[in-house]
Amino acid sequence: MYDEDRTFLAIPGPVEIHPRVYAAMNKHLYGHRTSFFREIYKQCDEKFRQTINTKNPIQFHAGSGSLGLHTSITNFVQAEDHVLNLVNGKFGERVEKITSRFTRNSHSLKVPYGHGITADMVKQEFEKNADIKFVTITHNETSTGVLNPLEEISKVVHDHGALLMADCITSAGGDLVEMDNWNIDIFVSGSQKCYGLPPGLAFIALSQAADERLNEVPRNNDFYSDLLQFREGVKKGDTPFTPPVSLFYGLNETLDIIHEEGMDKRIQRHRTMGMLYRNAIEAMGLELFAQPEFRSNTVTTAKVPDNVDSSKLSKVMLELGIMIAGGQGTMKGKIFRIGHMNLVGPRELLMIVAALEIALKKAGANISLSSGVSTIQQYLADQ
Amino acid sequence: MYDEDRTFLAIPGPVEIHPRVYAAMNKHLYGHRTSFFREIYKQCDEKFRQTINTKNPIQFHAGSGSLGLHTSITNFVQAEDHVLNLVNGKFGERVEKITSRFTRNSHSLKVPYGHGITADMVKQEFEKNADIKFVTITHNETSTGVLNPLEEISKVVHDHGALLMADCITSAGGDLVEMDNWNIDIFVSGSQKCYGLPPGLAFIALSQAADERLNEVPRNNDFYSDLLQFREGVKKGDTPFTPPVSLFYGLNETLDIIHEEGMDKRIQRHRTMGMLYRNAIEAMGLELFAQPEFRSNTVTTAKVPDNVDSSKLSKVMLELGIMIAGGQGTMKGKIFRIGHMNLVGPRELLMIVAALEIALKKAGANISLSSGVSTIQQYLADQ
Repeated sequence: MYDEDRTFLAIPGPVEIHPRVYAAMNKHLYGHRTSFFREIYKQCDEKFRQTINTKNPIQFHAGSGSLGLHTSITNFVQAEDHVLNLVNGKFGERVEKITSRFTRNSHSLKVPYGHGITADMVKQEFEKNADIKFVTITHNETSTGVLNPLEEISKVVHDHGALLMADCITSAGGDLVEMDNWNIDIFVSGSQKCYGLPPGLAFIALSQAADERLNEVPRNNDFYSDLLQFREGVKKGDTPFTPPVSLFYGLNETLDIIHEEGMDKRIQRHRTMGMLYRNAIEAMGLELFAQPEFRSNTVTTAKVPDNVDSSKLSKVMLELGIMIAGGQGTMKGKIFRIGHMNLVGPRELLMIVAALEIALKKAGANISLSSGVSTIQQYLADQ
Repeated sequence: MYDEDRTFLAIPGPVEIHPRVYAAMNKHLYGHRTSFFREIYKQCDEKFRQTINTKNPIQFHAGSGSLGLHTSITNFVQAEDHVLNLVNGKFGERVEKITSRFTRNSHSLKVPYGHGITADMVKQEFEKNADIKFVTITHNETSTGVLNPLEEISKVVHDHGALLMADCITSAGGDLVEMDNWNIDIFVSGSQKCYGLPPGLAFIALSQAADERLNEVPRNNDFYSDLLQFREGVKKGDTPFTPPVSLFYGLNETLDIIHEEGMDKRIQRHRTMGMLYRNAIEAMGLELFAQPEFRSNTVTTAKVPDNVDSSKLSKVMLELGIMIAGGQGTMKGKIFRIGHMNLVGPRELLMIVAALEIALKKAGANISLSSGVSTIQQYLADQ
């Protein structure tokens, strides 16, 4: 009944995309070494800065979010550098893998999946190892639905004179990220999550400290990711390599849509949708996976109930035209994940939850139909 | 929260359109007096015929469904002809207005809104007036949610030697229409309903009897609607006037989508969705408007409950991102209408009904949240 071309994406990215963004991307291509493109680039830069409250220029890298992570590390980490990775999920583990390629002194603070990392834990790491000069953190850990306290952790990192690289791939553009106020040195995000674009663009911004550090660090061999080249690009208002022009058309449009809603309202919407979905999950009698004080507002993880076949759950959801995500790695079959990013509002949430109840029941769960959806309805009816 | 560009259209047309159709319509324009266009025309003709089970060629008219109705009448009805219009809603009244422009002998069989017209009633009209040579019927009356028994009525019309013009604008492509088996002489439909295209194309097909009649009837002054010109066009495989090329791209794609689903399954889906929505309405404690034996499978009308402000109902639905339709003319404020055409499946129905319950409650109705949506969930969970 639902073909792949109109499956509703309730996975934690890629997400549903606004029709205006599709329309914008359909615009005829144009040469990128032109004043026409530089004007679009300039607008994207200015509008993007407002989404993370920064004065720093934004670099646009043609590639996935993982390119952004790789680039942030290869440009700053040398073979003897002591790096601390804050790891509580698959995406933190990915960063850990990248840093360990560049230094033999890659350390990791690990907490169990579903747990958050606190500023105190980070402080203790610095007390154990005063040589740490570079810290990586996954702000919103998409694999576990955990939102780490970035602002507090950043204070500790800077109290100890280190640089902080923050993977904000599934937080920025939806939840609150304050690059300057929180003192993030290297900000990384991607196009296909809260920014509501197809995959293909990574966003990087550097604090003044990080930018200065670039002059001191010897260059790696990496050519495509060499941030010095991007710094030159930013000065001219374009990119060192051919940019994905259509994605820039789409970025300019999605940033307009974001600012028409207003970042404050947008963040509030993401938080409300997260709250409503979590309440619905608990009303169904299911258990949330992440620790209560660290729950993400853009992706929610819930435990697969006993006797429920998680692959059946996903299959029935897909038959109902909605794609959800399962657990990754060791979490496979144990949790399922829903993304509520970008355009997800009450209408989508009602649909997702109503379908989820059917799918859970058909996959073997002992739940009452409408138990979750009615909590969302009640909240909305009371508004 | 929901801007106009992504309002979900739960009105009885225009409807939600498949992303593949948008993509197809984005294709670069091409000249229409070319073999390239004639090939598309030919494919559209062949694929369209299968949706109404006919051997007759399809004419494609650049204009709205009303152009189709106008054209069907101006080409067949002369000043002294006795015409019988079967009228039970606003769209039947529109046809009545058109026929009365062309003949002083325009008669109408009228039954109250919400009621169906039976073959027996039509028989009685012929018994009263043996001069009737042309009958018009609105197969699916969009203003009242009534599906008239076209097949049975057609038998009576042909028993009395008259021609039958059937407005199938909101039935064809979704519910069953059998042009040849049912002996429809002049079939009319439009692009923006069950066929899932933007507005702008009217479809007309003529039975052999109607086609022969064209030679006998003196021409009106009408140029744009002159079916003799279209008959010539059909022979060459194109249209007498410039066709809306992009809509043809879209038509070719939507017909592919229709046949990938299969007309039988598609009709069954429309009937199931109609049944599920009607059951949900009654489970909420609301009253359906149309007589039980004449209820449409593509558009449902329900009475606005006492103490409910229907404009508030529509407003709250729109705030929830879903557009519904109110009553027209004297029915304004008394009924509300939902279209479940083209792409509407379980996912959309769950969303519409969950939102409708919230909107009804906020507009003053005394209903239990989830009372309707749970009936749909239960049905789907039992599948």
